Amino acid sequence: MSTILTENGVRKMDEGDPLATYRDQFYLPKDVVYLDGNSLGAAPKAAFDELETAAKTEWADQLIRSWRGADWWVLGEKLGNQLAELIGAGPDQVTVCDTTSINIYKALHAALSLRPDRSVILTEAEGFPTDSYIAEGVQSVRDRTELRLEDLDEDTIEDYLDETVAVVLINHIDYRSASVRNMKAITEKIHAAGAIAVWDLCHSAGIYPVDLEAANADFAAGCTYKYLNGGPGSPAFIYAAKRHHGSFSQPLSGWWGHVEPFAFEPNYTGDTGIRRLLCGTQPILSMRALKASLDMYDTVDMAAVRKKSQSLTSLFIDLVDQECDGLGVTVISPRDADARGSQVSLAHGNGAAIVHALTERGVIGGFREPNVMRFGFAPLYLTHHDVWLSVAHLKEVLETEAWREDRFNAAGKIS
Amino acid sequence: MSTILTENGVRKMDEGDPLATYRDQFYLPKDVVYLDGNSLGAAPKAAFDELETAAKTEWADQLIRSWRGADWWVLGEKLGNQLAELIGAGPDQVTVCDTTSINIYKALHAALSLRPDRSVILTEAEGFPTDSYIAEGVQSVRDRTELRLEDLDEDTIEDYLDETVAVVLINHIDYRSASVRNMKAITEKIHAAGAIAVWDLCHSAGIYPVDLEAANADFAAGCTYKYLNGGPGSPAFIYAAKRHHGSFSQPLSGWWGHVEPFAFEPNYTGDTGIRRLLCGTQPILSMRALKASLDMYDTVDMAAVRKKSQSLTSLFIDLVDQECDGLGVTVISPRDADARGSQVSLAHGNGAAIVHALTERGVIGGFREPNVMRFGFAPLYLTHHDVWLSVAHLKEVLETEAWREDRFNAAGKIS
Repeated sequence: MSTILTENGVRKMDEGDPLATYRDQFYLPKDVVYLDGNSLGAAPKAAFDELETAAKTEWADQLIRSWRGADWWVLGEKLGNQLAELIGAGPDQVTVCDTTSINIYKALHAALSLRPDRSVILTEAEGFPTDSYIAEGVQSVRDRTELRLEDLDEDTIEDYLDETVAVVLINHIDYRSASVRNMKAITEKIHAAGAIAVWDLCHSAGIYPVDLEAANADFAAGCTYKYLNGGPGSPAFIYAAKRHHGSFSQPLSGWWGHVEPFAFEPNYTGDTGIRRLLCGTQPILSMRALKASLDMYDTVDMAAVRKKSQSLTSLFIDLVDQECDGLGVTVISPRDADARGSQVSLAHGNGAAIVHALTERGVIGGFREPNVMRFGFAPLYLTHHDVWLSVAHLKEVLETEAWREDRFNAAGKIS
Repeated sequence: MSTILTENGVRKMDEGDPLATYRDQFYLPKDVVYLDGNSLGAAPKAAFDELETAAKTEWADQLIRSWRGADWWVLGEKLGNQLAELIGAGPDQVTVCDTTSINIYKALHAALSLRPDRSVILTEAEGFPTDSYIAEGVQSVRDRTELRLEDLDEDTIEDYLDETVAVVLINHIDYRSASVRNMKAITEKIHAAGAIAVWDLCHSAGIYPVDLEAANADFAAGCTYKYLNGGPGSPAFIYAAKRHHGSFSQPLSGWWGHVEPFAFEPNYTGDTGIRRLLCGTQPILSMRALKASLDMYDTVDMAAVRKKSQSLTSLFIDLVDQECDGLGVTVISPRDADARGSQVSLAHGNGAAIVHALTERGVIGGFREPNVMRFGFAPLYLTHHDVWLSVAHLKEVLETEAWREDRFNAAGKIS
């Protein structure tokens, strides 16, 4: 960085933003710079109307008739097909249901069912912990299954792949550092070893132009309440490549995944399409808030999202370098914008207290143990000037050590 | 029945109804008699406000801060403690999460973990199919586990219990006939054989004064969108008796069930309380609609609910006997009110078409294969006069064979 960045210069960066019109489609609280869209996305205003229609018209007035009349019964697949456009999946290969953890559980069992002669689940030692927890759960009940936790990336993965590995579960974008993995190259290596690739897209869906088909991925799962703005705990999604449909099985074999759910047969026969990954009745109201966001995404150019995402995160890093030099924070996200998701993480020994102090000032970020301050940049509702404001507050909190005055509050830890 | 029932006589039955005030707390569509509350309960008006607050104030305005600030993080346990009052559970033994099918999956694995030397899952051949489907799923991945599907009731269950049976999964009230099982007597027999009792409460929670503690039940699960009026697909509940806390394990070991979910340790250590049955992030908006209903239930006298439930279903049977004699319908629910839940099922070879014709006329019931017309009576929002109207319409549809005119529509099958 050769020239000094100024507030006016930063304001100019927002001129001509092709995504500028989306900001007004969100409800954003006053006097807040929201940098935690990587934990819980902001609310699309249209979500309020969706919820009202779903509750008052469909549930209250039409009652049971809405299961067919309002397409509740296939809402997961409808949302899945909208979401497919954002993650490079073909039609009828994605459905919205349950939680990320549960969908990973299904995907791991499905992968193991496709590799009956192999026994090893390989996943990341430092991925989002629920991934390894769920892999542990699968391993705990499934006989002759072994779990290996390793530091996986494009360069190291081959060291851990052998003819015993049935499935590799790996994050596309790391939740702590926002490092992006090369999905295509890694999947190729997994396939070359004869294993199945399961991708966790929690930190890429909605902000990165994922291309599951180009990468030839087998399964994927992810949440919808981060960059996809589906609301608190909105149901997750799961992807299964068409070539595996009808071949895999998974043990959460509830009636929604039955080939004839209303025949009420005593024995289970799984659907041969994506519904084989469904289990029980889905939370329609929560799904409808997500629909509002996906309807908006139908019009979004993901290349523009990626471009703005890189611009926002690069600006944040440049401003931290310029304004916070010597104040004790270290950028731990990749400095190469191509290797970075839509989040910048800074390390500081008092990170939790600093995040709390920033939140009190209206700059809302997140904290992850042991010392990681995470700042997520959602290109649909943030501006470059928001980035300026956030670093100005960060600088002030660091310089004045304002975080020492704030009684540490565990609330900061959830964000 | 010795005297003729008349419309005026039936109206008199509604006088002095101690639950009469609740009807006005629900939104009920005009010109509809809703007898499908056993599939999807009617909407409490307060649910609309809860949804609006949760969406506009907590999500949109407070954003990530609501996980602690609005108690989203412990909402499942808060709702679980409210629900506990309705099912005879002590505090901190019930949580609201996921779906019934998934919760049964957890309960079966948990039971098996408590009986490592036993191998058999015993469940009903004719229970709600998802129960046997899920048991099949558990069996499919868990080595040395055997599944037995039998016709289970108080008189027969001992025939199927031996020292190999680890767990029995059984419905409290049958979804087809509404027969009530004697939970205490059956649990005693299961325990005498050294097995674990898992109860499916889908058709009893909210309309029957369930007493899990008096019955000494081990685990239970059920849905909240039927008589509990939580809205379409509102999350289910799961109960684990305190004596098992800290002892059982279950493989859906996601981060929400970790003893220190925010420590982000790579290995899983389960919570020692009810949260061990949690897995991933829950759909808060859908849970908030349920909260509205449970807040109402906080004031409800379950003995009065049971009394009115018996009165409504007995009246329906008496009126069907009186008005529809010779018209081809057979009552297949128990005629003894003490042996019957809050639903009356009638058999007819053209049941699906008849239910459809009734729905067209505003009397909404449900159909289940092969020939079962189900009419559910929710005591909080139905009157005896509603029962009169429903039988009057049923008689007309049967007498005029109006159902032949209606093109059969599969929509009837979901209800």
